[in-house]
Amino acid sequence: MAFQLPTYNPPNFEDPKFKSAPDCKIALAEKDGVLPDHYHATSIFPEYFKINGEWKLAEESRMDCVIVLRDNGHLDVVEARLIKKGDKVLLGRSEHGEEGVYLHATGFETENNLEEQFAFRTGRSRETAFSKDYDTLYELLKHEKEHGNIVWTLGPAFAFDYDARNAMQSIIEGGYMQGLLIGNALATHDLEAGLLRTGLGQDIYTQKAQPNGHYNHLDLLNLARRSGSIPQFIEDYNIKDGIMYACVKNNVPYVMTGSIRDDGPLPGVFADAYEGQDRMRDLVRPATTVICLATQLHTIATGNMTPSFRIVNGQVRPLYIYSIDISEFVVNKLADRGSLSAISIVTNVQDFIVHVAKGLEVY
Amino acid sequence: MAFQLPTYNPPNFEDPKFKSAPDCKIALAEKDGVLPDHYHATSIFPEYFKINGEWKLAEESRMDCVIVLRDNGHLDVVEARLIKKGDKVLLGRSEHGEEGVYLHATGFETENNLEEQFAFRTGRSRETAFSKDYDTLYELLKHEKEHGNIVWTLGPAFAFDYDARNAMQSIIEGGYMQGLLIGNALATHDLEAGLLRTGLGQDIYTQKAQPNGHYNHLDLLNLARRSGSIPQFIEDYNIKDGIMYACVKNNVPYVMTGSIRDDGPLPGVFADAYEGQDRMRDLVRPATTVICLATQLHTIATGNMTPSFRIVNGQVRPLYIYSIDISEFVVNKLADRGSLSAISIVTNVQDFIVHVAKGLEVY
Amino acid sequence: MAFQLPTYNPPNFEDPKFKSAPDCKIALAEKDGVLPDHYHATSIFPEYFKINGEWKLAEESRMDCVIVLRDNGHLDVVEARLIKKGDKVLLGRSEHGEEGVYLHATGFETENNLEEQFAFRTGRSRETAFSKDYDTLYELLKHEKEHGNIVWTLGPAFAFDYDARNAMQSIIEGGYMQGLLIGNALATHDLEAGLLRTGLGQDIYTQKAQPNGHYNHLDLLNLARRSGSIPQFIEDYNIKDGIMYACVKNNVPYVMTGSIRDDGPLPGVFADAYEGQDRMRDLVRPATTVICLATQLHTIATGNMTPSFRIVNGQVRPLYIYSIDISEFVVNKLADRGSLSAISIVTNVQDFIVHVAKGLEVY
Amino acid sequence: MAFQLPTYNPPNFEDPKFKSAPDCKIALAEKDGVLPDHYHATSIFPEYFKINGEWKLAEESRMDCVIVLRDNGHLDVVEARLIKKGDKVLLGRSEHGEEGVYLHATGFETENNLEEQFAFRTGRSRETAFSKDYDTLYELLKHEKEHGNIVWTLGPAFAFDYDARNAMQSIIEGGYMQGLLIGNALATHDLEAGLLRTGLGQDIYTQKAQPNGHYNHLDLLNLARRSGSIPQFIEDYNIKDGIMYACVKNNVPYVMTGSIRDDGPLPGVFADAYEGQDRMRDLVRPATTVICLATQLHTIATGNMTPSFRIVNGQVRPLYIYSIDISEFVVNKLADRGSLSAISIVTNVQDFIVHVAKGLEVY
Repeated sequence: MAFQLPTYNPPNFEDPKFKSAPDCKIALAEKDGVLPDHYHATSIFPEYFKINGEWKLAEESRMDCVIVLRDNGHLDVVEARLIKKGDKVLLGRSEHGEEGVYLHATGFETENNLEEQFAFRTGRSRETAFSKDYDTLYELLKHEKEHGNIVWTLGPAFAFDYDARNAMQSIIEGGYMQGLLIGNALATHDLEAGLLRTGLGQDIYTQKAQPNGHYNHLDLLNLARRSGSIPQFIEDYNIKDGIMYACVKNNVPYVMTGSIRDDGPLPGVFADAYEGQDRMRDLVRPATTVICLATQLHTIATGNMTPSFRIVNGQVRPLYIYSIDISEFVVNKLADRGSLSAISIVTNVQDFIVHVAKGLEVY
Repeated sequence: MAFQLPTYNPPNFEDPKFKSAPDCKIALAEKDGVLPDHYHATSIFPEYFKINGEWKLAEESRMDCVIVLRDNGHLDVVEARLIKKGDKVLLGRSEHGEEGVYLHATGFETENNLEEQFAFRTGRSRETAFSKDYDTLYELLKHEKEHGNIVWTLGPAFAFDYDARNAMQSIIEGGYMQGLLIGNALATHDLEAGLLRTGLGQDIYTQKAQPNGHYNHLDLLNLARRSGSIPQFIEDYNIKDGIMYACVKNNVPYVMTGSIRDDGPLPGVFADAYEGQDRMRDLVRPATTVICLATQLHTIATGNMTPSFRIVNGQVRPLYIYSIDISEFVVNKLADRGSLSAISIVTNVQDFIVHVAKGLEVY
Repeated sequence: MAFQLPTYNPPNFEDPKFKSAPDCKIALAEKDGVLPDHYHATSIFPEYFKINGEWKLAEESRMDCVIVLRDNGHLDVVEARLIKKGDKVLLGRSEHGEEGVYLHATGFETENNLEEQFAFRTGRSRETAFSKDYDTLYELLKHEKEHGNIVWTLGPAFAFDYDARNAMQSIIEGGYMQGLLIGNALATHDLEAGLLRTGLGQDIYTQKAQPNGHYNHLDLLNLARRSGSIPQFIEDYNIKDGIMYACVKNNVPYVMTGSIRDDGPLPGVFADAYEGQDRMRDLVRPATTVICLATQLHTIATGNMTPSFRIVNGQVRPLYIYSIDISEFVVNKLADRGSLSAISIVTNVQDFIVHVAKGLEVY
Repeated sequence: MAFQLPTYNPPNFEDPKFKSAPDCKIALAEKDGVLPDHYHATSIFPEYFKINGEWKLAEESRMDCVIVLRDNGHLDVVEARLIKKGDKVLLGRSEHGEEGVYLHATGFETENNLEEQFAFRTGRSRETAFSKDYDTLYELLKHEKEHGNIVWTLGPAFAFDYDARNAMQSIIEGGYMQGLLIGNALATHDLEAGLLRTGLGQDIYTQKAQPNGHYNHLDLLNLARRSGSIPQFIEDYNIKDGIMYACVKNNVPYVMTGSIRDDGPLPGVFADAYEGQDRMRDLVRPATTVICLATQLHTIATGNMTPSFRIVNGQVRPLYIYSIDISEFVVNKLADRGSLSAISIVTNVQDFIVHVAKGLEVY
């Protein structure tokens, strides 16, 4: 059954409570990176602000940012650290119009999906029935391939397993990835597998440890640094498979962010965490479905910058976010966002990705 | 590639250390269920005992039992609680022949599989590469369907998910199960799904909670108790799918053991834990491969009574035991047996069983 | 600050909806262990039934049982398996009086504790702040020592650690235990520690493995079986410390239930799971606080038979139930009961019990 | 019993195999951040290199770095990314002298501690007996306070709990911390607690959620950024308790490293992951005991840069590293270093730190 996007029901701004609401107050930032008191912080939901008597949606939202009114009238959703002295920051800490701020959490609710919402919200664990989630995901991804934008974030374990790595490659080659968010480790392990068929020195199929295999990832890093870039390394060493190979070959943009546990890093990794956030958000801005796999750090980072909705062709539609991890603790961290569109599956991501690749008939 | 059983290398009893070893000492049990001092306790490995100058293998071994010399010369491996006054119990707590006891832990080792053994023994976690384990398992199961005996033990979560339950049914119908070890809960949830398509009141596909659904498993238990047996219930209510249905229809023997967290119980459940152990061991005695899925209680119970070898057509061969669970803690409990043949996979068993059913081409 | 029990607010049966409600219907059980259709199943909350125009509370309730009207007018809360042919079973599957059944879930709610209730219900994880829970528990236990009845259920890991075992002994000796629910394993490991200072052959303080230490628990079991009872064994072998020692010396009743993973068992263990349930419930019937530590099997079994209230001196009061485990999955299994009085702490129970013993100033 | 450092047994370089070994080969780095082929990578153990016929120890070692021979003859242990063109990099991938490289893994072994080593190496889980580990840790910390240098790395959960935060403060004030490695989150939550007594808006003692409490950490970050530094913020807002307060007041140096999941960040956080690594290593260089609590990211990062030994007053002594986490998976990640001195405890760090503070008699 083909996937059907739910319809968005905007607020009725003809309602007297909206008509009688005051304009949203504004204050100027006193210096770079510092907010005025009583600033309004955003959520994952659509939020409207009354500016000069008009209710306006902040379009590219995300959690825990502030709204800056630009001179052209646009409402920018900005991280506090990026505020510049003199920016016009919207104020208000109530959400029902009292201060010209309206948070619209129920735009996609219908009687029917409220019921589903309830099912979704029930805590998910290893014992939850996930069959329908898989089937829905296959249909969603087929829909998004044609009409949306799919961003993945992957933990390093992927590249340790032969089938999981191949399945991920097939999904990329099948056109189901429009952006990739990773750390230095995933790329390193994946390229190690491409060069030597090992992950941290262990054969990714047989698990056999190679002699002196602990040098493998260090050697890989050294060779890639010598080549100067990942695409150049792939060419220099004739890499023919894997996740990074598929991204490069299929022009899928990726953002690699560094962390303090990195060796290397590979060329192209963003060392600065906050520049990394900015580049990640660049990839997330067009995303309509985000799939986070087996990485607590990247999943939470990505979840932080991912709203529950997206505007496509002028229409508000849901943004779907999936979190798949073997630990209930990790998936619940994201699920605590409390949104209909955050869906968790508790399993080993190796098995998950092979199922998905088979469900999409690319593997 | 078809599965190849490794060859067993028996001890060389022509070696002087065996020739010069004394006969194993024997003492009579003084009363029922009580052992003589210095009794010998068994392991998962083949063990030989010198009786009247001859080295004899205790054939149907298991961990932590004792050896009783029967009047016909047979060496029975007996749980302490089943010892009868007057039984001839073998003594000895050394394992290299000093007391006429020889434990042979290396019968299946070759240079090649020692390496694999090392890989296997390395701790397994969510980040281990499992591709080859899956492929090997498919080949093993195909081999065992023709030449061996496959016993499964299943935790209750199976019946909560539509695909997992169907996949398990297909595996049974495909001939890949010769015995099933379960608790009251798995059978209850599976029959609830057969009757009402729910598990504890939730639809096993959509996850939707049914109104008053908490009555479903109680009603199921009541109806089954009214019918008087599971086969009769399946007939009375025209159950057409599921794990219990497939076992009954395909004459796969099952042992249901009770526990203190049971409702019901279903007719046929063994209330007595130790009678339950005896009936479980009856099913394990012919097993050549044992697969334990998502149940700490049953996995450890089954592991306790499962040796590392089996005698088939007079030949000693390995007995393979798998433990699949989402928790490293649980799989490592069994892996601590330290045997080559104990193989762990860390994942959600729902995904595992769908993979296996597809790998066997039955789903 | 001394612990204050909240006051119970009974339903106002003068309200017309109660006055106009019909009597509860009754049907006779057709045969032993089988219920009439449309039987009513109980919950953890106080439930009232209209009998001959009078609303009566089922006093000793528990989840998933049925109500039998005895000839003396008493409402017994009975497990389905214990129903006898001819028992008068109450019917009804609505809970607001429509069928003469009223479930009173809000008897202890005040504006203030509703807020706390909310805090309690928020999912608990390793990152929850537990300081106040500890402080409240100390005060509760001091109150219960004087005015209540404290039942503990313990997983086997307790006896593996020197401090945890000593702390538990001190708590018993301090008068903070009126009943103990355990399996064969806890008692076995505790007595092994008492006899040999090891748990499964490892020194419980230094962790050093003793030579041939895997015989220790088998030897312990054999000696205890020879003695014929735990008290006799304690006397025969001059055991001077530990959990079982403290129970025997302080006349704390304990129920040991068997399971299929047991070795032994020890004398006194209930082999029959359902007889075991009955004896466990005997200990739970007077309990006003129940503390479940590190045992999924026993925690769920105990939770199943533990209501949210207790009648003491004719007054309805809360029954407090705690679940402490290192796994969020396990504690959430019990917390899903949805009751104010179920409180979870996520930690290693070794540390928990040492904290509690120090908080009670007995260690 | 006072803590006794084990004695280091250096290699006997009079042994012919050392005498006959060749000098270690050297190659020049061809460009910045790129190593010559066949570079030698370091381990956590003491390693000796034959330079001009003399065996020299690389003193400040860490895993997965390279050795640079400085003009003054010193052997620097350098991260590959810090290599400069022309650096003299040592070569060799054998470890027994064949190439002038000798890895000395057994310098602290005695017959007695080999046994302990075995106990330590046995997998640790929630069921391990930790009593002796606690007692040893108390003695070790008392010794290190006088003779060593204790570095802690803390995950964010600490600041969520009243007792844990107070206990940690007491430990700092007691003189048991010479360096602190944290992320932006721990400092943010700790300062939020200092300012508002909440963590992410929840009261750290009562767990009650404050109205609009999700603003608390954003407000805290904004105020701290306005103040310009953490010490200034503490002064401006008269903060009187907590971890950061104790560090500032007691002149304990701390390194805060940023990550992509940060809000803020606080002033003083290193945005650049690799600059952050360098500053972390600056704190680790003098450390003789490192304690890593409840943070997978920081624990692995710290573990990567922490060797198994330290030179104090010209003597080689062990460097002790502890990893405490509620997840076996996390502690085993570090334990896989395979070193005697890496010690894991599986528990909730809240309970751990309160125990330690009480064991040190500072709380």
